[in-house]
Amino acid sequence: MTYSYISHLYCPKCSKTYCTSETHHLCTCGSPLLVNYDLEALSVSWTKESLKERSPDLWRYHELLPLQDPSHRVTLGEGMTPLLSLPVLGDDMNIGRLDMKDEGVIPTGSFKARGAAVGVSKARELGVRELAMPTNGNAGAAWSLYAARASIIPTIVMPVDAPKITRNECAVSGARLFLVNGLISDAGRIISQAVKDPDIYDVSTLKEPYRIEGKKTMGLEIAEQTGWKLPDVILYPTGGGVGLIGIYKAIRELQQLGWVEDGRMPRLVAVQSEGCAPIVKAWEEGRTESDFWENSETMAFGINVPKAIGDFLVLDAVYKSNGCAVAVSESSILEEQQRAAQMEGTFVCPEGAASFSAARKLRRENWIKDGEHVVVLNTGAGIKYPDTVNLDIPVLQPGDVLEKKV
Amino acid sequence: MTYSYISHLYCPKCSKTYCTSETHHLCTCGSPLLVNYDLEALSVSWTKESLKERSPDLWRYHELLPLQDPSHRVTLGEGMTPLLSLPVLGDDMNIGRLDMKDEGVIPTGSFKARGAAVGVSKARELGVRELAMPTNGNAGAAWSLYAARASIIPTIVMPVDAPKITRNECAVSGARLFLVNGLISDAGRIISQAVKDPDIYDVSTLKEPYRIEGKKTMGLEIAEQTGWKLPDVILYPTGGGVGLIGIYKAIRELQQLGWVEDGRMPRLVAVQSEGCAPIVKAWEEGRTESDFWENSETMAFGINVPKAIGDFLVLDAVYKSNGCAVAVSESSILEEQQRAAQMEGTFVCPEGAASFSAARKLRRENWIKDGEHVVVLNTGAGIKYPDTVNLDIPVLQPGDVLEKKV
Repeated sequence: MTYSYISHLYCPKCSKTYCTSETHHLCTCGSPLLVNYDLEALSVSWTKESLKERSPDLWRYHELLPLQDPSHRVTLGEGMTPLLSLPVLGDDMNIGRLDMKDEGVIPTGSFKARGAAVGVSKARELGVRELAMPTNGNAGAAWSLYAARASIIPTIVMPVDAPKITRNECAVSGARLFLVNGLISDAGRIISQAVKDPDIYDVSTLKEPYRIEGKKTMGLEIAEQTGWKLPDVILYPTGGGVGLIGIYKAIRELQQLGWVEDGRMPRLVAVQSEGCAPIVKAWEEGRTESDFWENSETMAFGINVPKAIGDFLVLDAVYKSNGCAVAVSESSILEEQQRAAQMEGTFVCPEGAASFSAARKLRRENWIKDGEHVVVLNTGAGIKYPDTVNLDIPVLQPGDVLEKKV
Repeated sequence: MTYSYISHLYCPKCSKTYCTSETHHLCTCGSPLLVNYDLEALSVSWTKESLKERSPDLWRYHELLPLQDPSHRVTLGEGMTPLLSLPVLGDDMNIGRLDMKDEGVIPTGSFKARGAAVGVSKARELGVRELAMPTNGNAGAAWSLYAARASIIPTIVMPVDAPKITRNECAVSGARLFLVNGLISDAGRIISQAVKDPDIYDVSTLKEPYRIEGKKTMGLEIAEQTGWKLPDVILYPTGGGVGLIGIYKAIRELQQLGWVEDGRMPRLVAVQSEGCAPIVKAWEEGRTESDFWENSETMAFGINVPKAIGDFLVLDAVYKSNGCAVAVSESSILEEQQRAAQMEGTFVCPEGAASFSAARKLRRENWIKDGEHVVVLNTGAGIKYPDTVNLDIPVLQPGDVLEKKV
């Protein structure tokens, strides 16, 4: 039994290839590297039927993941998150069928667990002992915890404004944690210096090729959970954009395996905040790369990324899927967060709420059509962002009596 | 196809029975009521095989749940949480096989989601429009969100010292939320007054019979995830104790169905903090009920329950399973929380950490024997308790260089 059908790494810009038995970062041309699988061989040996016997986590797709020896697997039970029907909120938006992929229901409370699980597992397989990364919070938290489970030492630098709870996750797991008075791009510069030490493995976004493979499993799960029919539209809150690139890659691979009904590809939507919308600007101008967004600011901290290294891959996925890129206002993010909780009982993170806002906007503009099936990615649990909720709560004394509600 | 094999409610104290087609609270004798199923009929028609085709959530056990019409189901995708192997921490404790049932990986971030999902669903089936409860935080959060999804109006009263993040979950979902300058017992008295209004359904712990059925699914899942072999010992952090009562009830039902290997029952351990240990005191004295614990205090807020209404059921389960009750120190809770994160990459809640501390203590005392299989319940995500982690993090300026680690 072949556990993984990985064949090699390749550069999506210059097509150069690399082997998978040693560590690689960017291509010599500066582009991120992607993982290739022997899909022809896999299409012969793998069946959907086989999934029925497997546990409900992302490792059920191990043939399409880069890990070659299952004994290197570093898992906290991540994956197969709920694909939840949201009929009330869907009605409110006049969307025919609205589902949410809830990435709050995962170890560490955010979708970053997927990239960390697969990335750390592969790092262990490659003999890595130390790793380092800049983060807007959730990725650092996830990589710290998975690194602890793998006995790998992580160095993490995050902006002082990143969600406070993610500091706890790094600190409690024993990571080398630093804050920086600046943005993730400032953290990135500090890490770039640190990883000149050859003993420290750089796991910055897309600077190692395996995180995207973990993120890819969101696409695989959406396909399986929709009975391989896939929705018409998928909306994804886009910072570094690895999840969107991953979902696109996943569905392309399923198409090549012949597992997807009618070979269809959902229209992929990159959602950003008006306070940090480099991908949206590039898309509106019909360009294939983005410019650095000056003075970026948004409460949806995970998508505060002024220049994504994989911007060209995000834009490529958006163009090729006939998708779009859309920016939403800060006030609409808070509104949608509250609507989702009050109408559907789900407490989503601001990034997820941004995607609901984008769905509403695109339906209003009729870009989303009558009766279409829409899936929104909620990338994390609302509980990680306590400051987004307004609290004005009456305080009683013991023995007080509640007034009858009118 | 019969969706549920529920037959009636019964009183575990005086054996009086009640029907399930209308709302009931306590028995006329004052005891909580339990749900009975027609296990004889079910053992003929239900097979383990049928589970393979079902989705990975707690509704896969619908025959053993009280909901009669699946259209009343209120779900956020809860259940089938990971049963994680913890080999490093197990070695550190000299425990042969240590697993953790991770209830942090569930909607609302705590095991309270199970009781709320089943309790709110059944409340909807019974036509409830408003509900009310006192809470130490997580239950109120879960019931608020599930009630929102069911369009039921919740009234929640929680102590001012309850975890702050749980306030957000109540508030964002639109619950009627009140704080009280006191303990959960003070909140309980306020709710007792409020529910004299016949339109308000009292869902205080064990005052409605269905929450326990949701909690029961932890036991069903542990059985399925261990291949119906079950561990030797299960440790559970005990406040109201509904989870422990539920796990015991679940395994008893599986025994009657003949699904459990050798008909075995794990030894059930009720874990409390030294700052609030009424069940432990009662168990040490060989009694069947507990006394109110004066001036209770513990950082593991979920188990700060000075007198549990179901104490006699908890003690019964502990006695009949040859289990025990054990109290742990506050300092050991913080130590175990950090150990679990550093050794295994899992950020558990203080209540979960208390159970690890108890496991270590019971192994040291040789109550847990050489090579035994131990399952610890982590009842929630560590991220809901940001104040338990000590943070002392260096702050860098953009352009700073990290010192090389020695």
